Amino acid sequence: MTTGADLLLSSALRSGIEVCFANPGTTELDLVAALDRARGMRTILGLFEGVCSGAADGYARMAGRPALGLFHLGPGFANSLANQHNARRHRSPVVNLIGDQASWHLAHDAPLTSDIDALTGWCGWTRRVVDADDAGPAMAEAFRTATTGAGRIANLVLPADAMWSGTDREPVAASAEGRRPVADEAVGSAAAALRRPGAAIIAGGARLSEETLRSLGRIRASTGCAVHLTRTARIEVGRHLPAFGELPYFPEPLLGALAEVEVAVLFGVSEPVTFFGYEGVPSRALPTEAERRTLASVDDDLEGAAAALAEAVGAPATVTEPDRPPLPDQPDGPLDPATLGVTVARALPEGAIVIQESVSSGGPFRKWSTSAAPHTIMAILGGAIGGGLPAAVGAAVPPPDRPVIALQADGSAAYTVQSLWTMAREQLDVTVVLLANRRYQILDVELHRAGMDGLGDVAKGLTDLGRPDLDWAALAGGFGVPGQRVHTATELAAALERSLAEPGPHLVEAVLG
Amino acid sequence: MTTGADLLLSSALRSGIEVCFANPGTTELDLVAALDRARGMRTILGLFEGVCSGAADGYARMAGRPALGLFHLGPGFANSLANQHNARRHRSPVVNLIGDQASWHLAHDAPLTSDIDALTGWCGWTRRVVDADDAGPAMAEAFRTATTGAGRIANLVLPADAMWSGTDREPVAASAEGRRPVADEAVGSAAAALRRPGAAIIAGGARLSEETLRSLGRIRASTGCAVHLTRTARIEVGRHLPAFGELPYFPEPLLGALAEVEVAVLFGVSEPVTFFGYEGVPSRALPTEAERRTLASVDDDLEGAAAALAEAVGAPATVTEPDRPPLPDQPDGPLDPATLGVTVARALPEGAIVIQESVSSGGPFRKWSTSAAPHTIMAILGGAIGGGLPAAVGAAVPPPDRPVIALQADGSAAYTVQSLWTMAREQLDVTVVLLANRRYQILDVELHRAGMDGLGDVAKGLTDLGRPDLDWAALAGGFGVPGQRVHTATELAAALERSLAEPGPHLVEAVLG
Repeated sequence: MTTGADLLLSSALRSGIEVCFANPGTTELDLVAALDRARGMRTILGLFEGVCSGAADGYARMAGRPALGLFHLGPGFANSLANQHNARRHRSPVVNLIGDQASWHLAHDAPLTSDIDALTGWCGWTRRVVDADDAGPAMAEAFRTATTGAGRIANLVLPADAMWSGTDREPVAASAEGRRPVADEAVGSAAAALRRPGAAIIAGGARLSEETLRSLGRIRASTGCAVHLTRTARIEVGRHLPAFGELPYFPEPLLGALAEVEVAVLFGVSEPVTFFGYEGVPSRALPTEAERRTLASVDDDLEGAAAALAEAVGAPATVTEPDRPPLPDQPDGPLDPATLGVTVARALPEGAIVIQESVSSGGPFRKWSTSAAPHTIMAILGGAIGGGLPAAVGAAVPPPDRPVIALQADGSAAYTVQSLWTMAREQLDVTVVLLANRRYQILDVELHRAGMDGLGDVAKGLTDLGRPDLDWAALAGGFGVPGQRVHTATELAAALERSLAEPGPHLVEAVLG
Repeated sequence: MTTGADLLLSSALRSGIEVCFANPGTTELDLVAALDRARGMRTILGLFEGVCSGAADGYARMAGRPALGLFHLGPGFANSLANQHNARRHRSPVVNLIGDQASWHLAHDAPLTSDIDALTGWCGWTRRVVDADDAGPAMAEAFRTATTGAGRIANLVLPADAMWSGTDREPVAASAEGRRPVADEAVGSAAAALRRPGAAIIAGGARLSEETLRSLGRIRASTGCAVHLTRTARIEVGRHLPAFGELPYFPEPLLGALAEVEVAVLFGVSEPVTFFGYEGVPSRALPTEAERRTLASVDDDLEGAAAALAEAVGAPATVTEPDRPPLPDQPDGPLDPATLGVTVARALPEGAIVIQESVSSGGPFRKWSTSAAPHTIMAILGGAIGGGLPAAVGAAVPPPDRPVIALQADGSAAYTVQSLWTMAREQLDVTVVLLANRRYQILDVELHRAGMDGLGDVAKGLTDLGRPDLDWAALAGGFGVPGQRVHTATELAAALERSLAEPGPHLVEAVLG
């Protein structure tokens, strides 16, 4: 018999979905059985739902198409929400399957019953599957929603009886809705703006491809405009591409970087705002009087828009990019963000995917990344902590096999540490560089900024991850990942060389002095 | 200067709140500073928000009064939700503090901004603090809400500017609202019902105290009625108290246990329903034709109601309870749920608190617990996985110091494994007995029940926690907790003796054959 669950999955397969990151429970048993029958669907277990949602996000960013997340009722889906928030900010295409009580059991308010729609509405579009026959059309609608523009979160709530009931309907295939072309007027308006003094392009959003970046380089060379990158869900980086500065995280340098802008061309992003509100600091990072023009929103065809703009400003097909400094020699001595950044940039194999969840220690690496071998960087834009390791899981799954390096702060790693187990089970080619400063350093920095350095033991205890120190090599080993600890840049270089040469996951705890 | 954050915490202290389980971020910096100044408030850091929410729940169940949970914006609070769901089902009094963006920064939709009210509304009452002056009244209202009846979740959303602004208002103290007395008519109606054949009391809810259980024993002895316990958020257990059977988890035995009931007196609970909906099985566990009478709801004064009912049925002040079997001798040989249950029951020190998150392997312990030394058992009623270790953290905090034993299934432990670190930092007297069957056994059981045993590798991979096995001793060590692995009942008995004799946390991985 074909069940609603079978119809759901066969429709997903017909639409090109090939991976399911799952943490199922009793209400999802018929989905478990259907996954067993769904040839072509790779099912990957997470020990915690935040691993699954972050992996689906990382997968979507690399594959450019959705994976499935599979969750157990409201509480299971709740555990996935922080990384749903990140996926929402990344505009990743994701289709979530959330099992629910059998329809006739809902009203009895059994222990695991809750208001699932409040949670799904928090992060995306939601549709409740009516019955087994509805499973195919519902999946097709979810797929189209998830693949509209840059991407969206589409949630399907699945009553257990709709999944276990039989159906004779055929699977429904759907096509990606994709991105919108940018209108000629927007291109013309942006081109006119770039002829003015104080013109700047602010670029970011879901993805900046090699083609897009090359077009931006042509535009910069031709017009002399500034190009500022915001942190981007996925960006191609390396010595083969034009290098652009990334806007700083903290408000004063952020505002400083944009202080001279008179006309801003927004490309794939809304106008930049400070991450948090600070007393006496404006929320909007551009000068009040600066003119804002939107060339393309995150949902638009950025490659096409950048190419059209390059033509409109009369840029030559190839331009000479400014020289950039070569990578420094391998440093020795204690690890700090600077020596670590150089060491990792030097060690990057061509085609590596770098996941960065290290706001307070990741800057030097990002600086040197533009002198490194060609690679991809994925940041965690939503700011929900614990996105890095799960994204590394997901990024390592789609072909072609590319080595993944997670530059991962220790405090953030602890939120979704269970990711290590999935790396071990699936033997994913991930090298975790665990930046162990043993504190929530960003909070120390913010306390300092707010003039609160003089606080006592209680406040210190809330930013200090010591007492006891986490032993990351032991934790990695406990989850089945070979782990080691290094203290110097030379040790780190050797550990990276070994880890990258061996298949499967590795963790290197880099103790920062 | 006194800030809104200071006023909030001083009002909490005046109302008797003494503990804060915290995972703060930048929007909570002024709360961090205020915690530093709040004398009498113990602040405990969790590495993941689900640890904090589960700890606040466990604390509330043992202390009978709320702790604070402190969370970072929507995504931080989202991470706490699964254990908020459990706390809601336990009817634990909890006051959550959720930092939000500065009020004027909200509209700019900065990366961490989200609809916090959708999340707080999911699990409880919510109030947004208007400004610094409002922090005292808001805390008082939250305290009263949290302490109404058995307990509730009260959420305060705290704009950062309301916390950092100055105020000259005085702290506001609030008193617990507490439980409602039960009306004489309800007692009379229940007494009349118990004179009929097929009468049964179904008891459970937030707490069953020694006094309540003794009254129920008197009523049973006097009327001959059946007494069925549902799983209870907190219950006193041991050879010093009357023993009552606990209703089974799975639907057929549950319905079987209640098949002969003609009139049910509901005491602290709604009528029992099956945990999930199963095809062809009714949701309601009592026979359709059985009469339901509510003696007391979960919010009522259960001790008073039970005592009044005992008087109303003319029960003598003391009764002779049926003999119960003595604890068996210490078993030897491989560990299984039966030998483990006896070993733990024998090892229990008087006054122990047992946290049980082990649905599929915990039955034999529960059976022998009524022959053991006096102790308290706390179950995880909401069914949201990962409640056990955090509840153990919270239960170990309030005085008097009582040893905590967490009977913890491995699959569930992985969800909130970061709890171990807080146990280590605070040197909490917790012994984790980690039941390692290396599978989501409940799913295997449910697959078998549904006739799906014959599934293939994909389905097996979703219930199997091996490949690789989690090394719990290594994980415990990584978080700073001494860990060891045992394979036989004799080894477990020795490990429990050592762990319980030494201060601080320990983990014993009990490998089930």
